[in-house]
Amino acid sequence: MKIDGKPYRSVWVDEDGWTVRIFDQTKLPWSLDILRLTDEEQVAHAIRTMQVRGAPLIGAVAAYGVALALRRDPSTANLERVVEMLGRTRPTAINLRWALERMRAALHNLAPGDRVAAAYAEAAAICEDDVETCRRIGEHGLPLLREIAARKGPGERVNVLTHCNAGWLATVDYGTALSPIFQAHDAGLPVHVWVDETRPRNQGAALTAWELGKHGVPHTVVADNAGGHLMQHGQVDICIVGTDRVTRQGDVANKIGTYLKALAARDNGIPFWVALPHSTLDMRVRDGVAEIPIEERAEAEVTELTGRTADGRLETVRVVAEGSPAANPAFDVTPARLVTGLITERGRCEASEAGLRKLYPEKG
Amino acid sequence: MKIDGKPYRSVWVDEDGWTVRIFDQTKLPWSLDILRLTDEEQVAHAIRTMQVRGAPLIGAVAAYGVALALRRDPSTANLERVVEMLGRTRPTAINLRWALERMRAALHNLAPGDRVAAAYAEAAAICEDDVETCRRIGEHGLPLLREIAARKGPGERVNVLTHCNAGWLATVDYGTALSPIFQAHDAGLPVHVWVDETRPRNQGAALTAWELGKHGVPHTVVADNAGGHLMQHGQVDICIVGTDRVTRQGDVANKIGTYLKALAARDNGIPFWVALPHSTLDMRVRDGVAEIPIEERAEAEVTELTGRTADGRLETVRVVAEGSPAANPAFDVTPARLVTGLITERGRCEASEAGLRKLYPEKG
Repeated sequence: MKIDGKPYRSVWVDEDGWTVRIFDQTKLPWSLDILRLTDEEQVAHAIRTMQVRGAPLIGAVAAYGVALALRRDPSTANLERVVEMLGRTRPTAINLRWALERMRAALHNLAPGDRVAAAYAEAAAICEDDVETCRRIGEHGLPLLREIAARKGPGERVNVLTHCNAGWLATVDYGTALSPIFQAHDAGLPVHVWVDETRPRNQGAALTAWELGKHGVPHTVVADNAGGHLMQHGQVDICIVGTDRVTRQGDVANKIGTYLKALAARDNGIPFWVALPHSTLDMRVRDGVAEIPIEERAEAEVTELTGRTADGRLETVRVVAEGSPAANPAFDVTPARLVTGLITERGRCEASEAGLRKLYPEKG
Repeated sequence: MKIDGKPYRSVWVDEDGWTVRIFDQTKLPWSLDILRLTDEEQVAHAIRTMQVRGAPLIGAVAAYGVALALRRDPSTANLERVVEMLGRTRPTAINLRWALERMRAALHNLAPGDRVAAAYAEAAAICEDDVETCRRIGEHGLPLLREIAARKGPGERVNVLTHCNAGWLATVDYGTALSPIFQAHDAGLPVHVWVDETRPRNQGAALTAWELGKHGVPHTVVADNAGGHLMQHGQVDICIVGTDRVTRQGDVANKIGTYLKALAARDNGIPFWVALPHSTLDMRVRDGVAEIPIEERAEAEVTELTGRTADGRLETVRVVAEGSPAANPAFDVTPARLVTGLITERGRCEASEAGLRKLYPEKG
């Protein structure tokens, strides 16, 4: 994706051939700070504090974390340690575990001396895989938007509602839920996006709005509370969201609040689609509500907010009455029955075991 | 209600016998600023800018606005003008219109010279009516919480979820949705309240949390997005919210996002109750989604937030990417089919025409 005309990915290796570079997403949209990650502890910190976030991206960055760790100590013990350590940074998104397992599988049978180069190669392959996967997700989602556009009168917009950020900042490039939207816009469809603010961390208002703005896609930020009202009044044609884990039966873990939008979509007969790469599938888990661990994050993410003052300073302010505690579950699970379908790099399918098996027979 | 041991109402007449006093609710919970309102323009400003808010309270304050206007000019023309002018300050809550009509009915047949005293008396009567009404709403809601408490094991809490602020700050005293909660707490029930933050104006985090904290009621603030997840995991026993207008068929206008919580409650088999005084009923309107005007408020309420810095300054910060527009519908409508029942000063009823007619036969 381009920022002010210059092409970027969300993670890349520096010209030195080994330092890992990311944007500090906690600073966006206010400043475009590029961080240097030089060891696995910095990678773990970046994932935990959400300097990088988005299920596919944390997988890719964790893969580079393994490579960085092996630079200092390529032993099998260290490989096992770093895979285990990075796997504990965040519990809900399965891509993290997927990427780490892929790294372990690619490296553990190699001689220690061969591991560093192989680790960088494998991490790069994970990134390339993600880029191509996300591009194809866009291709397979695009027809949904074309169909809606075909039903519209002249001058009418195709209104998409999305929650959180499933754009290129959440992946290595293109995004998942936003990939069809970028492609639709580039193809000249009159797409307009309702961007849920996405409290408490405001990934919608801060990241999705920024991405869409940089790409010139018309959009409007709304409070998370507004989606049901918009749907009741015919202002939403389709919902498309990303996901952090999809179970064997098609249940969808995603940013907290996704479930509420899926309920409203169902109540108003609006299609609710979930975009995901293969790495987000977790066939070992069936009942998402019962089985997917939901990360509980810090209270301060709810009680405090950072933004820019009129004179350009970044300030953090408390927005909850003094002394009142807060709780902060970071994800919820949308049961498959509320999901119209899944958009993957292999095409679209029903959110069900049968649907997933048809697209991914090798996953069993 | 008491603040630090001292009894207050949300609106009162000063010792001078005519100046109207309110809290500046836009400053809460950071400071307890008491404002003097001395003419109807100040009243209109206070309502428009939400220095006073909450359907019953804006009715009561508007009633005093009529009294203030008549002090300067008690003519019939001025009575008609001020009723019309104040009626336009906010469109969704029907209590405003109800209070103004009550004022007009009480005053228009009087000689101009008798109107000022009568206006203050009528506004005071509206306030007394509201206080008694809210106290009774609490009495009629309390059994719902008692029933839940009776089913709980030792040490288990009664978990209530509420949205926005329907406490004493939204009324003259006691509140609507919070009135049963205050009474339950005072009666020794182990009540705990999930307080929706209530974006974009954060009335939950700022006002409800503050009220509950001042009264010592255990509570936890959550992002508006969290309610569905809490309900899926058995963490909510009952939802109680206030309302700005209830239609003949029992549809409920309330703060934006209420509808999403009602959907989640239905999906999880959790009772969803709406507390209201008689003044919130609008029997002239049937289909709430189609007929209730929904106020669209300023974009800046979504794009900016005010809070307190660590060193105690109030700062307003932008939280949306620069250049991204926002939309701000302030209310939504929950269809009657999602409402378990209504809690009124006359008892509880089904959210339906039959239910309302049983309690309010005189409303026709």
